[in-house]
Amino acid sequence: MATPQLAGSSHLFDTDQLSKWELEEILERAAYWEQNWRPGLGPYQGRFVANLFFEPSTRTRFSFEVAEKKLGLEVLNFSEEVSSTAKGESIYDTVKTLASLGVEVAVIRHREEKAIRELLTRDTGCTIINAGAGKTAHPTQALLDLYTMKKHFGDMTGLTVAMVGDIRHSRVVRSNLWTLGKFGIRVILSGPDSMRDFELEKIAPYYSFEEAIRQADVVMMLRVQLERHDEKLFSSAEEYCKNYGLTGDRLQMMKPNAILMHPGPFNRGVEVVAEVVEHPRSKIFEQKANGVFIRMAVLERALGGGRR
Amino acid sequence: MATPQLAGSSHLFDTDQLSKWELEEILERAAYWEQNWRPGLGPYQGRFVANLFFEPSTRTRFSFEVAEKKLGLEVLNFSEEVSSTAKGESIYDTVKTLASLGVEVAVIRHREEKAIRELLTRDTGCTIINAGAGKTAHPTQALLDLYTMKKHFGDMTGLTVAMVGDIRHSRVVRSNLWTLGKFGIRVILSGPDSMRDFELEKIAPYYSFEEAIRQADVVMMLRVQLERHDEKLFSSAEEYCKNYGLTGDRLQMMKPNAILMHPGPFNRGVEVVAEVVEHPRSKIFEQKANGVFIRMAVLERALGGGRR
Amino acid sequence: MATPQLAGSSHLFDTDQLSKWELEEILERAAYWEQNWRPGLGPYQGRFVANLFFEPSTRTRFSFEVAEKKLGLEVLNFSEEVSSTAKGESIYDTVKTLASLGVEVAVIRHREEKAIRELLTRDTGCTIINAGAGKTAHPTQALLDLYTMKKHFGDMTGLTVAMVGDIRHSRVVRSNLWTLGKFGIRVILSGPDSMRDFELEKIAPYYSFEEAIRQADVVMMLRVQLERHDEKLFSSAEEYCKNYGLTGDRLQMMKPNAILMHPGPFNRGVEVVAEVVEHPRSKIFEQKANGVFIRMAVLERALGGGRR
Repeated sequence: MATPQLAGSSHLFDTDQLSKWELEEILERAAYWEQNWRPGLGPYQGRFVANLFFEPSTRTRFSFEVAEKKLGLEVLNFSEEVSSTAKGESIYDTVKTLASLGVEVAVIRHREEKAIRELLTRDTGCTIINAGAGKTAHPTQALLDLYTMKKHFGDMTGLTVAMVGDIRHSRVVRSNLWTLGKFGIRVILSGPDSMRDFELEKIAPYYSFEEAIRQADVVMMLRVQLERHDEKLFSSAEEYCKNYGLTGDRLQMMKPNAILMHPGPFNRGVEVVAEVVEHPRSKIFEQKANGVFIRMAVLERALGGGRR
Repeated sequence: MATPQLAGSSHLFDTDQLSKWELEEILERAAYWEQNWRPGLGPYQGRFVANLFFEPSTRTRFSFEVAEKKLGLEVLNFSEEVSSTAKGESIYDTVKTLASLGVEVAVIRHREEKAIRELLTRDTGCTIINAGAGKTAHPTQALLDLYTMKKHFGDMTGLTVAMVGDIRHSRVVRSNLWTLGKFGIRVILSGPDSMRDFELEKIAPYYSFEEAIRQADVVMMLRVQLERHDEKLFSSAEEYCKNYGLTGDRLQMMKPNAILMHPGPFNRGVEVVAEVVEHPRSKIFEQKANGVFIRMAVLERALGGGRR
Repeated sequence: MATPQLAGSSHLFDTDQLSKWELEEILERAAYWEQNWRPGLGPYQGRFVANLFFEPSTRTRFSFEVAEKKLGLEVLNFSEEVSSTAKGESIYDTVKTLASLGVEVAVIRHREEKAIRELLTRDTGCTIINAGAGKTAHPTQALLDLYTMKKHFGDMTGLTVAMVGDIRHSRVVRSNLWTLGKFGIRVILSGPDSMRDFELEKIAPYYSFEEAIRQADVVMMLRVQLERHDEKLFSSAEEYCKNYGLTGDRLQMMKPNAILMHPGPFNRGVEVVAEVVEHPRSKIFEQKANGVFIRMAVLERALGGGRR
């Protein structure tokens, strides 16, 4: 299902709503912040943003929080356990209440894609940024992936990105597909049969793991989303790693200038072995650093600022 | 039980301790902040306040947090689950410790009225603001209700306010009674028999729901406090709504200039139907906006600032 | 086990790594902040620190948070319940991720000493400050104890400090032993047989409670660490208090200029009776106030600042 029409809106639900021109603008603003931010008072001092995480995530929440504070924003943090949603207040009412308090942007993560999607069709008074929705959409992850590739390769036309692993449960795959296509990047998929997604294979072809590694300029290993599995989809971590983990041997099979990426949090010894995580070809921690600048750009867009 | 003698004190336990003059001063400072606050560095930069919520509340905690940050205060947040009160440290010792760390104001919500009340009689070194105590007192809610009425009606003398619903378990009713009387406002009560409070009816008369609606300039619908009921007091949400919910039909019965208020968080489809929440006569979200300015005024008073 | 070699490092794992000269420098910077800090923008505006508490602690976390905010630092707070360590990300990966986001200092408390110790031997990109590790080390507590003694006594040479109570489970005892020795302070131990630690008694002799009180210039009562006991080590709170609690009678037995200290959070009616906590001889709340200044000094050291 495509993102609802958001013309003229600064909401960010998924990357399919963004034109190539808008994507380039976000990449440029991220580069601006990466080069120009210095400790001190940010430019958005005294304006308010709320992080509403209905699904726990240290990494993504901290990345947004750092981006927000670097911009000078005031930050409200919320996690489901300590909220009045327990008292039956809907997310819509929570966001509308926050808008009444003076909050301009709500960064939301939720297990149910529908919960965030519904907010876009109603007038809450807040601009919504999706920080991860169900199995479907994780736009800021796809944007930071794109930014990481652009920094490494410059011109991205004609590159091949192989996404490997738990395709079926990954929101990262979907959000990346919508951005990469706009830059002439070819996407191929690989992973265990039990985690394939035949709908997505209509858009991106499936290859064996070894073939995918040989073709790819970017090997994007996906996190095994144990918490989203309804049934047991593989026998053991060792077995998974033997068949679908990025090991030192497999790293040797990659093209000379190819890089390894992973959206994190990674399972060392499952989809990647420990020594590969910090190999010079791995961009895993650089991705995290890039995420802050991308989120600064996305927040700025939500606040009506930046170059626009 | 009346609030203990607090002469010369800036503690805020309940509205019965405030003279009409003090109430007016708080309303004026709220209006000052509503008109004059601009994003930027607040005037109380580098001074410390702690929000101690021993009972979860997103809405009230966020309202205080926004007020605090708009004033420039540094904010410490605490919820019971992650605290050492689990290790047996009493609230008194927690607050005294905070004072030792440099915290000037403690905003406290607690299921037990006694827990907050006791703090007022001892020297903790912090000024205490009650953010909701048991079934008894919620002074900042009553103050923001008063401010909302004043903004709508101007002169409030002779108005009738009908409070409807779960009278027995509502701290909002009690705190409002002490303020409204001082401004010549008549209070009437209504709601199911199982939720009546015969002590309060000595002060404010009880009417049938329809009669109350017809007489009122303000219909204040109360949240059904399911979490404070010891026994089951009504058969179903539908049944409650049919008999005591504010429906579109009942809204039509209100006086021409009458308004709807609700302390929130509301149960849509129980005490109010969904379409009434955002009706032009509903001040529900405006109440939330007003809450920030009232809390700025109350915090300023606690810090010894403002016009005083 | 001694702290691993940390030459040239600003990590703080335990006090045994600090020379007398370094200890004195920390005390001086604490005194500087106590005398010179004023509300306003701190000097480290826009730099980031994270508090990672894998074991709950209101008191210590708030003390660090106040210290951080007084310095102007931006603060990220983390408690285990809302983190992705639940998703299997190791602490090392969490800290390295934080470093990628721009966090310079990680303040960590953990039940397992090993968890913090391991971080010191690897390159995470963050400077680590230990905020309490297992039963072993709590360096900022020992530093604030030292600072409290220095403020009261001036020259500390020849003083006797009696640590009384749950010696075996106390990380405070160990960290204090390494600092006090360097200032020519004699340490003696006392407490119930079931809580003695015969390894430590090789360094600090054991006395009966009454004898310890008579000899001491500082009586440091230790918290009974109920949550760290594997078996029941005493019959009841009353029984413990009768035999090993600091009562009013025992306070009378102390030397004329002797003081009472306690690392907190204290169990009133167990290791100290309520009325003794706020006796003029008790430095318990002053210790808490001093903790903020000591932590400002330690944070500043971690950031490469201060006089160095």
